[in-house]
Amino acid sequence: MKKNIAVTVRYDGTRYRGWQRQSSTGDTIQGKLEAILRKMTGEEIEVDGSGRTDAGVHAAAQQANFRIDTDLTPEEVMDYMNAYLPRDIGIISAREASPRFHSRLNAIKKTYCYRIHTGKIPCIFGARYCWIKGGSLDTSAMRLAASHLLGKHDFKSFTDLKKTKKSTVRTIESIDIEERGDDISITFTGDSFLYHMVRILTGTLCEVGEGKLSPDDIPGIIEAEDRQKAGPLAPAEGLMLMKVYYD
Amino acid sequence: MKKNIAVTVRYDGTRYRGWQRQSSTGDTIQGKLEAILRKMTGEEIEVDGSGRTDAGVHAAAQQANFRIDTDLTPEEVMDYMNAYLPRDIGIISAREASPRFHSRLNAIKKTYCYRIHTGKIPCIFGARYCWIKGGSLDTSAMRLAASHLLGKHDFKSFTDLKKTKKSTVRTIESIDIEERGDDISITFTGDSFLYHMVRILTGTLCEVGEGKLSPDDIPGIIEAEDRQKAGPLAPAEGLMLMKVYYD
Repeated sequence: MKKNIAVTVRYDGTRYRGWQRQSSTGDTIQGKLEAILRKMTGEEIEVDGSGRTDAGVHAAAQQANFRIDTDLTPEEVMDYMNAYLPRDIGIISAREASPRFHSRLNAIKKTYCYRIHTGKIPCIFGARYCWIKGGSLDTSAMRLAASHLLGKHDFKSFTDLKKTKKSTVRTIESIDIEERGDDISITFTGDSFLYHMVRILTGTLCEVGEGKLSPDDIPGIIEAEDRQKAGPLAPAEGLMLMKVYYD
Repeated sequence: MKKNIAVTVRYDGTRYRGWQRQSSTGDTIQGKLEAILRKMTGEEIEVDGSGRTDAGVHAAAQQANFRIDTDLTPEEVMDYMNAYLPRDIGIISAREASPRFHSRLNAIKKTYCYRIHTGKIPCIFGARYCWIKGGSLDTSAMRLAASHLLGKHDFKSFTDLKKTKKSTVRTIESIDIEERGDDISITFTGDSFLYHMVRILTGTLCEVGEGKLSPDDIPGIIEAEDRQKAGPLAPAEGLMLMKVYYD
């Protein structure tokens, strides 16, 4: 009987074209995982992730699941996969899930963290995992701006999603902005996030931090439902998927 | 009048052939710094480091100094250098030192940290800065072994230095072994360290941690003054120069 194996995947997204398998050239996380399962079983096995991460985005704990006909325990499947995965992708846990569990459909919320290095002292060891911005940011103003983003809103202004019939209403549960020396992290938790949403929220909060926008501009940007009104797309390297929540 | 500028340099040593400038091909940290000062002043300026780090070894805070004829403040010199340095080398502080200050000759002790990732859960984000060893290590045995290394000894067994007339006697002030989940760090502080000494000490402590050597074997290895008796050379990527001390 097929087992439904749920895994937690950690990856450095620097050299990948994102989570989702692509027909064109370029490596993806999903593609790498599926290639190993094909090698292991001789069959095409689809790996479902909790969501796509963009090219260059990292994950501390992406969730995925796949159905596999095997006598191996989840831990043995994990060990097999880790033996063949490249150094920048790893399975950090594995369990057998109920047959109907689906890592995307059952996800109820997610936490992302966006890291920014400010100031003029170079960032050396964490450079692959942050936006090296220089300058300084007024985090008090950013926190005030963030408070206007909390709750249920139509985030159409904060996505690069082209025409869609799907709802762009989302609920943000929390945005925590922490400052440690020259390093700022912005942690977003919400039910789900639209295409580029966390990076555009970050770009907008940074414009507030730089004084280009006022915290009071945020409600108007939300109401406009116009991507042009929000700030720029923050670069991929600063973003990391931290946690996916299930019931 | 020439200023003697002392700088703190941080680098990811992964793609360098070590600190010391070489006539052959391959980038070095010293070479990169000197090339920028040459560009800045049109003169050959020698940058003295507190010591050489091997190819692939990192530094959180290497100390260096150089004499330069300039009207710029140390901070302006730092900003200039950071503007031209590659992303994996940075000057994190600069000050004007007394004319006779020499970063190597005046150093009184140093701290190095060696990081090891054990266990079978892959190490993804810190992989550039640790020895990924797998297995497990008995840190209690390692601490006991380390206690035999403290103090003043002839560390001839723990260096790959070929014939030398110089003394191989050194004093180790402390060796702290910390364990956090699957990550182990060994922090060495001593007056100075011989060629490959920290990495051979680490390789030897790991053999104790694996049960291949007993803590009680250490005194005999020291007394033998024979490199063959000590453990293997731990890989460069796990090692980081943390601090150089001056009076």
